[in-house]
Amino acid sequence: MLIFYYARGTCALATHIALEDAGAAHEARRVDFGKGEQRSPEYLAINPKGRVPALVTPRGVLTETPALLVYIAQTHPAAKLAPLDDPFAFAQFQSFASYLCSTVHVAHAHRPRGARWADEPASLEDMKRKTPANMREGFRLIERDLFRGPWALGESYSAIDAYLFTLAGWLAGDGVEIAEFPVIADHYRRMSERPSVVRALAAESA
Amino acid sequence: MLIFYYARGTCALATHIALEDAGAAHEARRVDFGKGEQRSPEYLAINPKGRVPALVTPRGVLTETPALLVYIAQTHPAAKLAPLDDPFAFAQFQSFASYLCSTVHVAHAHRPRGARWADEPASLEDMKRKTPANMREGFRLIERDLFRGPWALGESYSAIDAYLFTLAGWLAGDGVEIAEFPVIADHYRRMSERPSVVRALAAESA
Repeated sequence: MLIFYYARGTCALATHIALEDAGAAHEARRVDFGKGEQRSPEYLAINPKGRVPALVTPRGVLTETPALLVYIAQTHPAAKLAPLDDPFAFAQFQSFASYLCSTVHVAHAHRPRGARWADEPASLEDMKRKTPANMREGFRLIERDLFRGPWALGESYSAIDAYLFTLAGWLAGDGVEIAEFPVIADHYRRMSERPSVVRALAAESA
Repeated sequence: MLIFYYARGTCALATHIALEDAGAAHEARRVDFGKGEQRSPEYLAINPKGRVPALVTPRGVLTETPALLVYIAQTHPAAKLAPLDDPFAFAQFQSFASYLCSTVHVAHAHRPRGARWADEPASLEDMKRKTPANMREGFRLIERDLFRGPWALGESYSAIDAYLFTLAGWLAGDGVEIAEFPVIADHYRRMSERPSVVRALAAESA
């Protein structure tokens, strides 16, 4: 049994969907960011980064979305969540995940969490003003260069689809209409209807 | 033959070291950021992100350091650059790489490249002031929680050591003395002496 720590509205949703896609036995535990639970001694003992997601496995705790998606894919190979037998295709999976985590997620984080990188209120407002342009730049590159269709990596669904869906869900809050990106918007709509996505979202809003 | 695009002083050094560790046949080509070559039509045709590293393989171009390190490890298994046969250990590799790319590299980037996320000169100065604290926080977590010793992941050297060495090399420029982190400082010194590191650094300064 895996124990999965998440918070609502965070990138942990990608891992949550992958757990559902894999049919992985897991218990989902909410970390309430509104109450600052991610900074509690109890949670820091699990994940000293004070972030989500965290996945408690029989051998220890794992963190970071790109790592968790591959771990779930490798330990549940029947679900075919990553191209595990082809180093080039796997590198494309990894490259997409890395772009989402280190560029797109970071672009988004400058709106709600600019205080990670600057202190003055005027700086945080400046970051917020620039967030829509940076999210647009990221999704423009995804739509034009990375997304292959019908799924993110091509013919086969993968855990990258869950990750892309999760970050695409932040566009509206960041002041960008998803309709600016027709391919991403269509992918988002199709993802929303998948049973694994419906289950993960229901679990997080329960 | 792989073609490897790098720029001096960037995270591409990690991939460069891994190529040397693997004994991978490659041609290293410098992208001159001072001349803005990363924004030239020629380079954007190779990597539309306008960043380094980029690795041209027989099947296409790959980008993003965590993806390249695993690709090199998987295509050169004799070099044992990643724990490829153990999903949990591989997830720890991935998690470490993801933390370096999405937290530590991003923390650093706010000093030289704050204009990615804000426009006003005062905001960029604010970011620069906060960079040392963020780099300290990242390396404190690495030293205390992630680094296992004698190598980053434990008994065996891996490509994570090349990545950690690369980012530890930025501490001084970011206003942090590496000596604040004795374990990292010792690792940095040992890495500096490895033939693969010496060769990669020599190639980049040629």
